[in-house]
Amino acid sequence: MAELTLHPDRALPTEPAVRDIARELYQQVKDLPLVCMHGHVDPKLLLEDKPFTDAADLFVTKDHYVIRMLVSQGMTNSQFGVPDRTGAPHETDPREMWRRVCEGWKFFRGTPSRYWLEHEISEVLGLKLRPSAETADELYDQIGEKLAQPAFKPRALFDRFKIEILATTDPATSPLAEHQALADQGWGEKVVPTMRPDSLYNVALATWNAEIDELSEMTGIEAGDYHGFLDALRKRRQDFIAMGSRATDHACTDANLWPLEQAEAERMYAAGRAGTITEEEAERFYRHLLYITAELSCDDGLVMQFHPGSVRNYDAETFERYGADAGIDIPQAVEFTQGLRPLLDRFGHHPNFRFIAFTMDEDAYSRELAPLAGVFPAMKLGAPWWFLDTAGAMERFREAVTDTAGFYNTAGFVDDTRAFASIPARHDLARRVDCGFLAGLVARHSLDLDEAAETAVDMAYNWVEECYPALRG
Amino acid sequence: MAELTLHPDRALPTEPAVRDIARELYQQVKDLPLVCMHGHVDPKLLLEDKPFTDAADLFVTKDHYVIRMLVSQGMTNSQFGVPDRTGAPHETDPREMWRRVCEGWKFFRGTPSRYWLEHEISEVLGLKLRPSAETADELYDQIGEKLAQPAFKPRALFDRFKIEILATTDPATSPLAEHQALADQGWGEKVVPTMRPDSLYNVALATWNAEIDELSEMTGIEAGDYHGFLDALRKRRQDFIAMGSRATDHACTDANLWPLEQAEAERMYAAGRAGTITEEEAERFYRHLLYITAELSCDDGLVMQFHPGSVRNYDAETFERYGADAGIDIPQAVEFTQGLRPLLDRFGHHPNFRFIAFTMDEDAYSRELAPLAGVFPAMKLGAPWWFLDTAGAMERFREAVTDTAGFYNTAGFVDDTRAFASIPARHDLARRVDCGFLAGLVARHSLDLDEAAETAVDMAYNWVEECYPALRG
Amino acid sequence: MAELTLHPDRALPTEPAVRDIARELYQQVKDLPLVCMHGHVDPKLLLEDKPFTDAADLFVTKDHYVIRMLVSQGMTNSQFGVPDRTGAPHETDPREMWRRVCEGWKFFRGTPSRYWLEHEISEVLGLKLRPSAETADELYDQIGEKLAQPAFKPRALFDRFKIEILATTDPATSPLAEHQALADQGWGEKVVPTMRPDSLYNVALATWNAEIDELSEMTGIEAGDYHGFLDALRKRRQDFIAMGSRATDHACTDANLWPLEQAEAERMYAAGRAGTITEEEAERFYRHLLYITAELSCDDGLVMQFHPGSVRNYDAETFERYGADAGIDIPQAVEFTQGLRPLLDRFGHHPNFRFIAFTMDEDAYSRELAPLAGVFPAMKLGAPWWFLDTAGAMERFREAVTDTAGFYNTAGFVDDTRAFASIPARHDLARRVDCGFLAGLVARHSLDLDEAAETAVDMAYNWVEECYPALRG
Repeated sequence: MAELTLHPDRALPTEPAVRDIARELYQQVKDLPLVCMHGHVDPKLLLEDKPFTDAADLFVTKDHYVIRMLVSQGMTNSQFGVPDRTGAPHETDPREMWRRVCEGWKFFRGTPSRYWLEHEISEVLGLKLRPSAETADELYDQIGEKLAQPAFKPRALFDRFKIEILATTDPATSPLAEHQALADQGWGEKVVPTMRPDSLYNVALATWNAEIDELSEMTGIEAGDYHGFLDALRKRRQDFIAMGSRATDHACTDANLWPLEQAEAERMYAAGRAGTITEEEAERFYRHLLYITAELSCDDGLVMQFHPGSVRNYDAETFERYGADAGIDIPQAVEFTQGLRPLLDRFGHHPNFRFIAFTMDEDAYSRELAPLAGVFPAMKLGAPWWFLDTAGAMERFREAVTDTAGFYNTAGFVDDTRAFASIPARHDLARRVDCGFLAGLVARHSLDLDEAAETAVDMAYNWVEECYPALRG
Repeated sequence: MAELTLHPDRALPTEPAVRDIARELYQQVKDLPLVCMHGHVDPKLLLEDKPFTDAADLFVTKDHYVIRMLVSQGMTNSQFGVPDRTGAPHETDPREMWRRVCEGWKFFRGTPSRYWLEHEISEVLGLKLRPSAETADELYDQIGEKLAQPAFKPRALFDRFKIEILATTDPATSPLAEHQALADQGWGEKVVPTMRPDSLYNVALATWNAEIDELSEMTGIEAGDYHGFLDALRKRRQDFIAMGSRATDHACTDANLWPLEQAEAERMYAAGRAGTITEEEAERFYRHLLYITAELSCDDGLVMQFHPGSVRNYDAETFERYGADAGIDIPQAVEFTQGLRPLLDRFGHHPNFRFIAFTMDEDAYSRELAPLAGVFPAMKLGAPWWFLDTAGAMERFREAVTDTAGFYNTAGFVDDTRAFASIPARHDLARRVDCGFLAGLVARHSLDLDEAAETAVDMAYNWVEECYPALRG
Repeated sequence: MAELTLHPDRALPTEPAVRDIARELYQQVKDLPLVCMHGHVDPKLLLEDKPFTDAADLFVTKDHYVIRMLVSQGMTNSQFGVPDRTGAPHETDPREMWRRVCEGWKFFRGTPSRYWLEHEISEVLGLKLRPSAETADELYDQIGEKLAQPAFKPRALFDRFKIEILATTDPATSPLAEHQALADQGWGEKVVPTMRPDSLYNVALATWNAEIDELSEMTGIEAGDYHGFLDALRKRRQDFIAMGSRATDHACTDANLWPLEQAEAERMYAAGRAGTITEEEAERFYRHLLYITAELSCDDGLVMQFHPGSVRNYDAETFERYGADAGIDIPQAVEFTQGLRPLLDRFGHHPNFRFIAFTMDEDAYSRELAPLAGVFPAMKLGAPWWFLDTAGAMERFREAVTDTAGFYNTAGFVDDTRAFASIPARHDLARRVDCGFLAGLVARHSLDLDEAAETAVDMAYNWVEECYPALRG
């Protein structure tokens, strides 16, 4: 039963001469504050500041990537406490959930979940047991003891993690009550919302008309027609900005952000209100609204984050039993060159527009994304994320895009997680990988050491601030 | 004229610290038996156990990847003994064929054919001449002398190679006579069939109705309609299982395994029997039968091996002159996410279903295949093969899929070859590459050495047995 | 302010044992002459042999990849002297242009532009200042002093660079006057034209009919109908051959080089002449002419260079203001397997046909391009170029294609540049990368050192001559 220890050189290059340079670079970035501009932590966590209750609460139930790996080996969501809508029973004992993770520890070999969990157990909690069937219970108890201490409450961890700012993700019609309450307590600079209007843009949803009514009510602007809707949307964006927001966030199955003629858009909106819009029309209207979002962004400065290519709720049975976000989102290929052409053609040179494109399709990096980000000033490449937020994939990202886009057309790291305790592990890994990549350039005599150091600090900190500028006075 | 020697560290990482770890891991797997669950060796080879006659017989005429490289440099299939259906003469002297390989030796630099041939000459035959125009004849004679010895007959090599089990590939209507005869001689556990029903599923083939009649006759089940066909197919699968079979094998140009309504399937089958089915219908019916195969697999446990994306007989002239399998199969891009959705949605969580997906399209690894195999318990990723069974491509496979799928959602190595003498070289290369990859994880402090060793042994041996379980009592 | 120095080991592998081998290989290729079979240098440069005037003239205004990176950071083409067709002013002071490059020097970190510029400043000019806001003016003056010396005039550099032959790119209806004048001055073996008939093949262009008339006039063959056109084209190809040409060059948005029935082709040509052809027809006719080009190539031996997948003039505003070739060409995915099938099926084994395929879509390397080039004798893979002419991408190219295509189904390096002074830097980088890749094979015991050395020399020199054979008596 080996002890769990984190090696100081983990994830750095293994070749001694390159590693020496990487270590030197890493020293200069490892203690920089964390700028967390894209994540999914619930603002309640920091508002209420309740202790995490146990190992499953901290590590498992909020991290469906841990659960998904165990599902791939024949376990079920129910066994990790996800309620089953068919009425079948689900696990309620967190110790059992944790035991299943420890028993399945070998399935995580080589994965980022393993990397983060080890970091959390060792660095965040200061424990030294390697998870296994044998150690599961003892580790569960040790974790529980730690979590009962004040130093492990969310706000204490927030400060210990040196988080400078944490952006949450919030529905467009969120009242932002938690953020207001956080602001009232002096946390308004630290925790800011991000507007995610996916459901508001999706006329095909059964909930759409109700959400539009909600939008009208909360903005005081009647969204009776298309123009009223856009006015209400503009107002809502201002509400978010007033609460510290710097960005919006948008998903789509593809990248075809093609505009409609205005009359067509007006007609579709009306059809949506009347409940007569077809699914195909709703899709085209959705893409049109994403196009229009670029125009709104030019006006108010909110960064437009765009991530196409995920097929949500891929598996009907899992969706029916466990609902959305049960971990079965599967990427598909995305065409960016023709897809983004109208948007970049019109807004790509606008001095006030900021567009950050993420992908789960690595194949587009060197062929489409780097050439686009490498010429349009409005566009930056988002960090590798989702299935690509790993040491290997982050290296491949830098290798694929740097030639054509350099470093300064990328937008810095985002942790993109619900798992609060994993945030420092994720940023730390990205810093290690970037330092390793830069060290490789120095070792191959492509870059001088002083330049590499400046770039490492920029990528870890300064440039992220540059890419997501503060908008509130 | 350099001597041909195999370095003990070949294909291991070059960096000394990583290589040391890789060597240690490799020591633990190099002598494990070979589990060969997917291959194309003719069962007659082992039934008849006749000696290989010469270097061309052993190395060239059964390996169209050797021939294809020389064709790319202007030689022809005829020059390697492939009969030309236009009646033009073809080479009959094996010494001449071998000479052409040796003269073109430089064209193989950096290719897996070169790697395997060197292994075979050196390790299997114990010879030391490097192939070249100058050494061709002497090497030919030395090889001939070896092959005349009993120790180089197929069964002796089978034992020397430590092959534990060898799966052949057999038409669905094969009488399995060779396998029966092998079983009668006590080789029934060692050589087992795999059912490949491609032609039986392809109603567009001129031979289809005759094959259906054959199926009816050999199963005693009248395949007059769709339901009779499925019953006969079930019976045939039981025949294969009785002969030790563990899997079926299926090709398709894409991965769109979409089911038909039952009435539609019945109608198309009848149209096929009547000879009135269109090509487009036959394609849809083929995909439907692949979907149905998953259902059959849930019932009887035969592993469903699926490999889409090869365009067969790409070049009409080569096909007309030399027939199928003359080496001109060309891969094309394959979409898996939408293609496999209906099948995985319905059967992906079935406890008895086993689905192994192979690809020749590396681009799908991280985007589609790893996310799918990383969540559906029924699905495993097949080893990199065909054009991807090389040191570099095997490394890229592990790099691309491990993050999201780990090791235990992959299915272990398959040699996929007609070239019997190359089998140990292929498994040995895969073991070296996996040990190198695992050593990299250890060197970067992502994995402990004991875990890496367990994983290496699992990937080389235990896990393959797990993925292709024995079905016969 | 660090000094700018080029390390002798730049771009070689960093691992000491591999680097030692790479150094040894590089010694054998570094001084070989340059064979520049695909480029965009203006023949006037060498005909007139006027001195370069300043740093902007030498490094910036002819290299839109330098400008594009600075545009991505918010500068404009106007700021680098590109006239704005809207009448807005543009920069005319080359010192200012150079200053902007130096001020934006950090944006080039990790890019090939940086690598080449450093090489040019240090190796070509012998200067030692690292570009920065502080050094911009001094460096500008130093460069100016150098350029005023006779040793830095184009022809002197041509000889110093050891360029053996330089192919330019010329419209099909070019009178080739500069080439004739160069030949008259004894430079006819050194500078040869390449025929690029894109506009002549594109019936949709407003200029098409006029260009056809020009073709008729200059060949003396009436291109009144399709057959006359082909005859005139054949004659024009002979004119190019007489001037030393070895190849033609063809772009297309995809690779679907599908032939028309002859009657259809005749009809479309006539419709083109009459101005009644539709855009869709013009596209199909364009692809047909590319198919027919293969037939012409079989007859006269001109190598057919083909590079699909670039979306030209992506951004309407940039195109309207600055015209074509302003740097906003964006790649898109290309399907080669079905696209090239008719052409390779018919001409792929023709002993006189030579077809070199380039790509900007790395994803097709291992899946489509290497399998095709690895079997069709007529086809070779062009070097990684355009966005892929970088150390990393050249390595990825060798890694992706060598397994299946070996080295001898690739066609050697092409510099593909307008930036004359960067030519030696580009060839040198390719040589370094190939030596590094070969050294890796030696270090992993896949190749003997003598073989690696022969391959390195072949790839850098001999094989390029083999792939582009001289046609003139």
